[in-house]
Amino acid sequence: MLVLAAAQAPAQSPAPAKARSMQEILDASKASDWRTLDPDNTLYLDLAAGRVVIELAPDFAPEHVANLRTLAREGYWNGLSINRSQDNFVVQWGDAAEDEKARKPLGTAKTKLPAEFTSTSKNLSFHALPDRDGWAPQVGFAEGFPAGRDPANGATWIAHCYGAVGAGRDVAADSSNGTELYVVTGQSPRQLDRNMSMVGRVVQGMELLSVLPRGTGPLGFYEKPEQRMPIQAIRLASQVPAGERTRLEVLRTDTRLFDELVEARRNRRDDFYKRPAGHIDLCNVPLPVRVPKG
Amino acid sequence: MLVLAAAQAPAQSPAPAKARSMQEILDASKASDWRTLDPDNTLYLDLAAGRVVIELAPDFAPEHVANLRTLAREGYWNGLSINRSQDNFVVQWGDAAEDEKARKPLGTAKTKLPAEFTSTSKNLSFHALPDRDGWAPQVGFAEGFPAGRDPANGATWIAHCYGAVGAGRDVAADSSNGTELYVVTGQSPRQLDRNMSMVGRVVQGMELLSVLPRGTGPLGFYEKPEQRMPIQAIRLASQVPAGERTRLEVLRTDTRLFDELVEARRNRRDDFYKRPAGHIDLCNVPLPVRVPKG
Repeated sequence: MLVLAAAQAPAQSPAPAKARSMQEILDASKASDWRTLDPDNTLYLDLAAGRVVIELAPDFAPEHVANLRTLAREGYWNGLSINRSQDNFVVQWGDAAEDEKARKPLGTAKTKLPAEFTSTSKNLSFHALPDRDGWAPQVGFAEGFPAGRDPANGATWIAHCYGAVGAGRDVAADSSNGTELYVVTGQSPRQLDRNMSMVGRVVQGMELLSVLPRGTGPLGFYEKPEQRMPIQAIRLASQVPAGERTRLEVLRTDTRLFDELVEARRNRRDDFYKRPAGHIDLCNVPLPVRVPKG
Repeated sequence: MLVLAAAQAPAQSPAPAKARSMQEILDASKASDWRTLDPDNTLYLDLAAGRVVIELAPDFAPEHVANLRTLAREGYWNGLSINRSQDNFVVQWGDAAEDEKARKPLGTAKTKLPAEFTSTSKNLSFHALPDRDGWAPQVGFAEGFPAGRDPANGATWIAHCYGAVGAGRDVAADSSNGTELYVVTGQSPRQLDRNMSMVGRVVQGMELLSVLPRGTGPLGFYEKPEQRMPIQAIRLASQVPAGERTRLEVLRTDTRLFDELVEARRNRRDDFYKRPAGHIDLCNVPLPVRVPKG
């Protein structure tokens, strides 16, 4: 029992002399520790309050992301709205019309897509965390996304961490077409992992979604049309003139610098923390972004 | 490896015939499955938007809770404000004055309290979850609060789940006096477990706190005084006339019914879920409340 207790708290040992804080680590980062988002893999959700920037995940849900690109290029969501905000869970947008006949046509986008809950693509890089997780055999970062993995069959999936973006669906696994998207705004609902087609992650602007008033209808849907938050536009960054794009770099998750950053959060060495945790949850790992220099 | 993978997903086996949904379980609950909050252990935070109901945790932080009772009875917080809202982390209230001389006097409340990070009280009942956790040797519910526990020394502590209420402090472990309180509004920051004196948990009204605009200053503090959310009053329920109290019952966490509810969430048996998780995180366990009948 004592051995187990000790294993739970390795951080009680003195900090190594060279431990740096997260800020010091970021300040010492090199250009190669950062990556620029691909404009064809970046979705801008523009609201009156500002812009939410989403990185798409074609390696995980290629058919969904292809459909999202078509929908964005054809302006499908422009003028639609955020229709749901359920406390400690998700916000969701799409076409609020309940009557199928009243819904906005999908243009050239597909109306039917396969379920894309996990990926076994050989192209997916996976950078594992050593920390144990109750929801998945293994967790870490795949192409920069917080992810679970099953080494037994090589399946990888985007985890439902804060900011994860998924495709809403009905009961049937293959009933999502990408028009209804949700974003996690609460405690990570990891029970949804491997049950949903995940299309990306919010990299900037979560605070515009997380503060939306909670809907008072079932599942947090707004009961009155005027409570819905209008969507000005959802566009691919590549559709937007270069001067109007949001300049952004994202910290790479497959570097030694990132490992050092995670360790700085796993065991906080500053004076405030009296007992470093000796552990970090996948969904507690910060994923810094910055405005590129120059 | 295959054995481990199978152990990760025991829920893939067919559901037992008698599995009930959470709603069915609650509908079948008896009066004895619920408990009424003690008015001396219940704090009302009244905002213009409504009331936040907090259950206090005297078994975990007796000296802090005693001070909170004094502060509430003497109206300490009335007219003060919520001064901080940091996205995916916490909201915090107290006296916004930076100059110590400008701060509101504490009346007969103590200005100095000991750190109360964990409890080794023999009176604490602990109802363990079987699910593994990366942050603590054991997790479960202690007196109804989501909690961690170390069987090696009997220490128990309130976990930083959504809605947990803690006493803000400076660098020194014993620098909190209970006037500055914070509530978790994001992904559970469990790294704070065993580092803070935890005084309770929000049982109703989280959606009033979670939607507050995020502050743009360091740590999410509001930069302009007019951005702060005024506190109309913070009172013990026992200070409030019986007719103005919020009638509320909380589901007990030490019953067979509660175990069944947790299992219903650990392995969702409805048609929507294609792959039940076979696991639940301490901070994902729902803690239902209801308006008592009659």
